[in-house]
Amino acid sequence: MAGPARASEEGLIARYFAPLAGPGADGLRDDAATLTPAPGHDLVLTADAVVAGIHFFAEDPPASIARKALGVNLSDIAAKGAVPRGFLLTLALPDDWTEDWLAGFAAGLGAAATEAGCPLLGGDTVRSGGPALISVTLIGEVPTGAIVRRHAARVGDRICVTGTIGDAALGLRLRLEAAAPWAAGLDPALKAALADRYLHPRPRLAAARAVRRHASAAMDVSDGLAGDLAKMLGAGRTARVATSEVPLSEAARRACAAEPALIEAVLTGGDDYEILCTVAPERLEAFRAEAAAAGIAVAAIGTVTPGDGPPRFDMPDGAERVFTAGAFSHF
Amino acid sequence: MAGPARASEEGLIARYFAPLAGPGADGLRDDAATLTPAPGHDLVLTADAVVAGIHFFAEDPPASIARKALGVNLSDIAAKGAVPRGFLLTLALPDDWTEDWLAGFAAGLGAAATEAGCPLLGGDTVRSGGPALISVTLIGEVPTGAIVRRHAARVGDRICVTGTIGDAALGLRLRLEAAAPWAAGLDPALKAALADRYLHPRPRLAAARAVRRHASAAMDVSDGLAGDLAKMLGAGRTARVATSEVPLSEAARRACAAEPALIEAVLTGGDDYEILCTVAPERLEAFRAEAAAAGIAVAAIGTVTPGDGPPRFDMPDGAERVFTAGAFSHF
Repeated sequence: MAGPARASEEGLIARYFAPLAGPGADGLRDDAATLTPAPGHDLVLTADAVVAGIHFFAEDPPASIARKALGVNLSDIAAKGAVPRGFLLTLALPDDWTEDWLAGFAAGLGAAATEAGCPLLGGDTVRSGGPALISVTLIGEVPTGAIVRRHAARVGDRICVTGTIGDAALGLRLRLEAAAPWAAGLDPALKAALADRYLHPRPRLAAARAVRRHASAAMDVSDGLAGDLAKMLGAGRTARVATSEVPLSEAARRACAAEPALIEAVLTGGDDYEILCTVAPERLEAFRAEAAAAGIAVAAIGTVTPGDGPPRFDMPDGAERVFTAGAFSHF
Repeated sequence: MAGPARASEEGLIARYFAPLAGPGADGLRDDAATLTPAPGHDLVLTADAVVAGIHFFAEDPPASIARKALGVNLSDIAAKGAVPRGFLLTLALPDDWTEDWLAGFAAGLGAAATEAGCPLLGGDTVRSGGPALISVTLIGEVPTGAIVRRHAARVGDRICVTGTIGDAALGLRLRLEAAAPWAAGLDPALKAALADRYLHPRPRLAAARAVRRHASAAMDVSDGLAGDLAKMLGAGRTARVATSEVPLSEAARRACAAEPALIEAVLTGGDDYEILCTVAPERLEAFRAEAAAAGIAVAAIGTVTPGDGPPRFDMPDGAERVFTAGAFSHF
């Protein structure tokens, strides 16, 4: 139970969350919102939660936590080729929450929601009895039947990723081992870039249309490229990946140059929130061009091959590696 | 991180949750599901979470916990006059979860979902780092524009409730003070009935059509009749309620006969999950008849009046009471 100096749940909602409410949400004064897809469209539904001490640090800025909670869900919607329409929020607060924290959280949430064109439609606020937990259900829409599924890759398809891979994993390492030799060699701007990628997912909403038009299968990279690629391909298909083609930021390149073993963290670390997809070879250039026109770089990193077992990565040293430990798991 | 003897998150989903998946959910093998309302319908979205130690007892049977987590959301959908279509589940597990618990939870969830015609569409499984927390986003549908809103009561409308009020609050008291004199006088079957109402919400889905056709405003009673009625009426409207007309079960009648002060727990306790609504006087009999035809009893307990301030309850002893402490709050 909140102490007497704190506002009621209704008061908190009216003050901090009602300003984020979208059409159909009745100003968050009701228990439910309405939503209808545009004619000729399906709704696309996804839900992901983040927990303090597991998916983020409890001491992270509350605006950053809000951005991550929304961003990891926007990333799923983008990878399905969909456009966001709105979200519901379950906010479970630890006993030591403060109104300052909540104000910062709501501000970050509002900024991220506005940026994505994705208003708040409803939700619930509860005590967690433990760490903070934020669960978001995100609703997007796609033209009827056009959702891009995870398990539809074909042998011979090229494997593509947006943006750069591994930055968030290195950003997390920086948080945990700031004094590591590889970190000492990075200038402050590059360190800040890595730290920012860990804190703030950049859901590739701008690539959704190109993915929908050209990808045979897609998912977002949240649990590490190697493991997520294995998950996407499933049984009967595997892949050969040219590690040298995996797109790295300048910061990640320098980190791997200083400590080559970091390439494993890059390929298996989590929290990239890039789109991983497969594209028929004859569509690759059109896909790349359309994504580029939307401001998103796409790299082709390998090819879907027949067979089982984890994808094989051709490493810079000429060796072939598999990552059988699989994906990083938050669970 | 789950110990080595435990299945992966994917393995748990495939084993326990994939059998509950509905059309559009791709067997829960993807990050998102599709859903489209029937032609001429809006989707209705709601989200509510329950937390161990706050909304239920950690030692409750896992099947009961699942039924409650789904039921509190189905209740919101029914009160809006909507029919359930599917749900997303965020399951945050404490560190000491067991696979037996999960199996029981999934079995209860599946039974409740099947009963409601409401399949699983997606979700997330995480460690809570504290008590178990279950957040459900429920999606229903109503004919376009037909959602019954909370704040639309008119002066002169009759105030109605489905079923019986106060059983769950008394069931909770029984859990907390089994040796109370009023409890000692109840026979075991009546005690079991109260305990069951606390454990297992009975969302009034069968009344949704009658509510949609006849109610001017509606919400479910989750935080106590007195407080929820005040919330529903909002500013400029209040109500006069005949406490003698508030429908009580046999168990609640006997409990209140043994200890008249319990009427306050009945009127202000939480977890009823009945529908509270307002109906124009000329529609009352049609509403009652249609709800009765669907198997749901409706009682008219008062009238919406002009004015501000909390609803006034005419008590059995002739006094008039208000419950300014407001609703019970789980927050």
